Amino acid sequence: MEKPLILIVNDDAYEAKGLYALVEAAKDFGEVVVVVPDSSRSGMAHAITMNEPLRIQLYREEDGIKYYRTNGTPVDCVKLGQKVVLRDRKIDLVLSGINHGSNSSISLIYSGTMAAAIEASLENVKGVGFSLLDYSSDADFTASIHYAKKLIPQILKTEFPPQVSLNINIPKLPLEEIKGIKIVRQTKGYWNEDLEKRVDCFGRDYYWLSGYLVDQDPHTDTCQWALNNGYVSIQPVQVDMTAYHFINDLKFMEE
Amino acid sequence: MEKPLILIVNDDAYEAKGLYALVEAAKDFGEVVVVVPDSSRSGMAHAITMNEPLRIQLYREEDGIKYYRTNGTPVDCVKLGQKVVLRDRKIDLVLSGINHGSNSSISLIYSGTMAAAIEASLENVKGVGFSLLDYSSDADFTASIHYAKKLIPQILKTEFPPQVSLNINIPKLPLEEIKGIKIVRQTKGYWNEDLEKRVDCFGRDYYWLSGYLVDQDPHTDTCQWALNNGYVSIQPVQVDMTAYHFINDLKFMEE
Repeated sequence: MEKPLILIVNDDAYEAKGLYALVEAAKDFGEVVVVVPDSSRSGMAHAITMNEPLRIQLYREEDGIKYYRTNGTPVDCVKLGQKVVLRDRKIDLVLSGINHGSNSSISLIYSGTMAAAIEASLENVKGVGFSLLDYSSDADFTASIHYAKKLIPQILKTEFPPQVSLNINIPKLPLEEIKGIKIVRQTKGYWNEDLEKRVDCFGRDYYWLSGYLVDQDPHTDTCQWALNNGYVSIQPVQVDMTAYHFINDLKFMEE
Repeated sequence: MEKPLILIVNDDAYEAKGLYALVEAAKDFGEVVVVVPDSSRSGMAHAITMNEPLRIQLYREEDGIKYYRTNGTPVDCVKLGQKVVLRDRKIDLVLSGINHGSNSSISLIYSGTMAAAIEASLENVKGVGFSLLDYSSDADFTASIHYAKKLIPQILKTEFPPQVSLNINIPKLPLEEIKGIKIVRQTKGYWNEDLEKRVDCFGRDYYWLSGYLVDQDPHTDTCQWALNNGYVSIQPVQVDMTAYHFINDLKFMEE
């Protein structure tokens, strides 16, 4: 039997420690190919590159794994990986990450990491995003690698429904303090943002975006609860964003 | 009573014909302020600017309406509009568009126009995206303006559930050929993409992203059906992307 074909992408670009952690976790389970952005694309969400040409180059080859980088977004990495690098070969799994920072709760819709996993699901390939709750560029991925190694073979064996992907978050804890895994729903919340005003050397104003996640969901079946209580969270993700509960209230607009 | 405060944003930038169409449709219903990108941000989805400073400047003032432009994304426009331009004033409605091109079906998750409307809903403000099914920069917005003028006062009077926004698409038809309005759910579909390979003047390869929408949903309650049959479509949008139907099948991973 042929080994599974695994495409690894991310949004933290080609030098991220989390990328090499994910390669380490995945390499024994299949043939791995890497396609990642040439600079950080955090917060890029599901952006695609429509206004400029895409370029891609092989930048590294090690242990039989080819690493490509591109000027595109995380979603472009999935498209380039399939259409340009792997052509007509059937990809078995797209892994995205391991992201430096949480993609729990509403962070999901800002996340380039998860957008790449979702994009895979739209192209009929299993897509899984891994995120560690540590923004540091030198974050410790020991526990993340442990759980990725446990989950990747299970994921390869599990049939996914159409257009469904997984959002996996790992708490910032030593391996021995992680209590286990919880299958969860998305926590209701929002980002409370500030735009900090500064003045540049030429006297012109500019603003930096900053903020913090506000958790509005006290229930115990959510990603935020799981992470706050020392569990790895796995949220299955789908792409129908219809607010079905509001359809009837809008029917009067049809008149 | 004070006039409603309406923030208008878009993803087609400050010179787009669709922007001025939306101002035309909205200006009689409230106090209008415009904050838009300084260059086209189509396909930017829910991207935010994390790696560079944001700038914003007043570029036009006409009929009592102030127009600002920024180097940010459509989602940044909502944040800048609220936090920098309007400070602590309560915005009653964020209108996004009118987009040059469809945001029906799965295009929703790539759309900067709709991301801005969704962002408003996350900030507890009504958010509505308008899109015309015509990519041309010189598209005819007559019918779009007619329907926006009909819908904006209704929207101002309607209470929205938390974190819900509207995705309104208008078919590319003369006003008299549009049959009415349908409240719809999101059509199941995906983009079938090509990456067209070209060679630049220096002999280097590059790729342009192109593609077409594949409609996988034959039902009559969808946006795609409504648009194909001459109706304006209104899809209520929410942000919980959990695939609830897959949660039980994943429970074995908790072991």
